[in-house]
Amino acid sequence: MSTRRRSRAAAGRDVNAYLARHVPITQAMGIRLRSFDASGVTMTAPLKPNINDKGIAFGGTLASMLALSGWAVTDLLLREAGEQAEVFIASGATEYRAPVAGRIVARCPLPEPADLSAFLAAYRLRGKARLRLNAFVEGKPGPAAFFEAVYIARRRAASGER
Amino acid sequence: MSTRRRSRAAAGRDVNAYLARHVPITQAMGIRLRSFDASGVTMTAPLKPNINDKGIAFGGTLASMLALSGWAVTDLLLREAGEQAEVFIASGATEYRAPVAGRIVARCPLPEPADLSAFLAAYRLRGKARLRLNAFVEGKPGPAAFFEAVYIARRRAASGER
Repeated sequence: MSTRRRSRAAAGRDVNAYLARHVPITQAMGIRLRSFDASGVTMTAPLKPNINDKGIAFGGTLASMLALSGWAVTDLLLREAGEQAEVFIASGATEYRAPVAGRIVARCPLPEPADLSAFLAAYRLRGKARLRLNAFVEGKPGPAAFFEAVYIARRRAASGER
Repeated sequence: MSTRRRSRAAAGRDVNAYLARHVPITQAMGIRLRSFDASGVTMTAPLKPNINDKGIAFGGTLASMLALSGWAVTDLLLREAGEQAEVFIASGATEYRAPVAGRIVARCPLPEPADLSAFLAAYRLRGKARLRLNAFVEGKPGPAAFFEAVYIARRRAASGER
């Protein structure tokens, strides 16, 4: 395992500890970051606590997981670049394509390298920048939901805390 | 209190019983339909179970409440029109404008009468129709979040259950 892979795996575990401590509803939903690697961030949740009246995953849970997966990508890439930013979502649009009748898996791929570079450069210049990300919920055969969101990173006093 | 106001108040209570029974994560979030009347549907939730790392309401909870408020409007208006439909969300876009640092209040106004008539006519003709709705989260001074969504109503065997 390369150093980068090891450090990404550790950073992913940190996200879980952070969510457990600071965003309690994610624990009721059973949301976990499963992996952070070259393919991006993958989050999972069991169906049971998130079931709706139709016996499928509640749309609000899908939207929450998608929003969190993009938040995690933004936050983790900033940390890899040595930056301590406050990251929040500015907008998020979900298109629901198919029901999710089992374990929920949300994936947010990493942005293109050029988009990431532009985002980091803007953040370093102005202390504030926006990153557009796309995510999806896995389905069979194609994605069960598509998500497009904009995240804002804003500089704050360095403290090690997210 | 007029007959319509009384029956809308009772229908609103039914929604709460239904959510408690069939969409368990709404109970962890503490989401309640507070009113259904001529101004639309209002849902509320306490901040505490929905707090995030910044000490404000988690964006996923706002998106969930907004989605539910539109679902409730669509479902309740169909019921008033004597129709038993399965209602689900097709798409939902949330724009986050300001932090919510206290009790969360989401409102979905009723659609324009002409839009409701067209929706009901399409549903009766084809057994399936789409309704576009706008909702928002209250803030000071303006809304803290805006939401635009499309709901699909689909006919099913009448059973009295949502």
